Amino acid sequence: MSFLTDLRTAWQQRDSLLCVGLDPDPARFPPHLRERPDGILAFCSAIVDATADLVCCFKPQIAHFAAHRAEDQLEALIAYIHKRHPGTPVILDAKRGDIGSTAEQYAIEAFERYRADAITVNPYMGRDSAEPYLARADKGVILLCRTSNRGGDDLQSLDVGGELLFERVARLVAEEWNRAGNCALVVGATYPDEIARVRALVGEMPLLVPGIGAQGGDVEATVKAGRLADGTGMMINSSRAILYAGTDESFAEAARRAARGTRDEINLYR
Amino acid sequence: MSFLTDLRTAWQQRDSLLCVGLDPDPARFPPHLRERPDGILAFCSAIVDATADLVCCFKPQIAHFAAHRAEDQLEALIAYIHKRHPGTPVILDAKRGDIGSTAEQYAIEAFERYRADAITVNPYMGRDSAEPYLARADKGVILLCRTSNRGGDDLQSLDVGGELLFERVARLVAEEWNRAGNCALVVGATYPDEIARVRALVGEMPLLVPGIGAQGGDVEATVKAGRLADGTGMMINSSRAILYAGTDESFAEAARRAARGTRDEINLYR
Repeated sequence: MSFLTDLRTAWQQRDSLLCVGLDPDPARFPPHLRERPDGILAFCSAIVDATADLVCCFKPQIAHFAAHRAEDQLEALIAYIHKRHPGTPVILDAKRGDIGSTAEQYAIEAFERYRADAITVNPYMGRDSAEPYLARADKGVILLCRTSNRGGDDLQSLDVGGELLFERVARLVAEEWNRAGNCALVVGATYPDEIARVRALVGEMPLLVPGIGAQGGDVEATVKAGRLADGTGMMINSSRAILYAGTDESFAEAARRAARGTRDEINLYR
Repeated sequence: MSFLTDLRTAWQQRDSLLCVGLDPDPARFPPHLRERPDGILAFCSAIVDATADLVCCFKPQIAHFAAHRAEDQLEALIAYIHKRHPGTPVILDAKRGDIGSTAEQYAIEAFERYRADAITVNPYMGRDSAEPYLARADKGVILLCRTSNRGGDDLQSLDVGGELLFERVARLVAEEWNRAGNCALVVGATYPDEIARVRALVGEMPLLVPGIGAQGGDVEATVKAGRLADGTGMMINSSRAILYAGTDESFAEAARRAARGTRDEINLYR
């Protein structure tokens, strides 16, 4: 099974475009988990169990594990998702970008060590820096295109001969990098008009859309700008607004309510 | 002490612009180290001891540790360099780039966990994605500008209104991002003319230059394009050509000869 096959199945069977981002921050955990040596794994796996039937994918962000020396808990978490919720794609959000010989090491880290189904990749170093990921047809390669942060404008909105840099990235990926059909793009919810422009350039390519929830993106405008005719085509990410919806021992139930609310709000506009 | 102070002292006292990149690949280790559980640390610390008096800095590349679950050996290696070779700056080559809240986690990873003196950062997501590193005035922030790989052209050489994208990055960093005076730029040795163009834009900002050695960049052209009037200003990286100069138990001596040869060749043109 490939990432995209699993993703399409999840879109249909779970009737959801929601991606839950797993960005663990122990300082925001309920008190009983803060000091546990395996607190990150315990917190994230409780969130996963509470939301798996409501999502099309999960997206652990590696810095939030690495800052706490918790690579072993990240490995265990992804193994747990594969075992307990098979068919739920896991995106390793690592935004890698390096020369080919190093990218091969990152690909080993992502796909052999962590057994992720997809990885986020930074396009600044060009196609050969993405090639070790692109060559894995069963894995998803999700290139940064238009990011949700304010500074995204600094480079991504520069005019490069009649189109903006993020539009060039979208075209390069759609026309040249996507030979194996395993690419997707990151386009932030903070810029719905730009989601629409990217959608027009890339056909049915999946879009990973951060920026709703804590970052303030508008759900209706986001969905309408990026959905395909069949109501799929997007992974709309929410992290903090779901993970930290509750602050006590019932945090997983609170996360489930928040995830269901977000999924349902998305579905209103599909 | 700050990264740049240490770097300037090392340039002078060791009479060297050489940066040795620590990209461990156990398959290329001498046989007696290949199967050791701490083989990566043993190999790299032997290289460090054999070359420290010949370099201005070391640059461990994190993927080569992460692919082997060797984060603990990377921590131990950097601690070893600080203890045994004080004043030798360590650059964590990680090419990070993410939104601010995540970049803060990466900064904790690089500076608190690994105790690196500097980190490489990808500029694609713009200034706010670099801010958590820029705010650490004692640490070096080395932004990708013109990378040494062939695919670097795909985006970096696009014309953005009368200048190329990498020139815009150089100007942005020099004019806006470098408030704390802790920035440097990555400019590949495979494009000496472009090193000269970056040097003209950024004054005395240090340049980290990969691409000599295994990647084939010309040493004379590289040094002449980027050196400052006092013969400093560059960290010229070589990784594989030094690490794997020997293949048996005398690998560290072979690495020392290769490092001395490269340092001396660089010094011919300073």
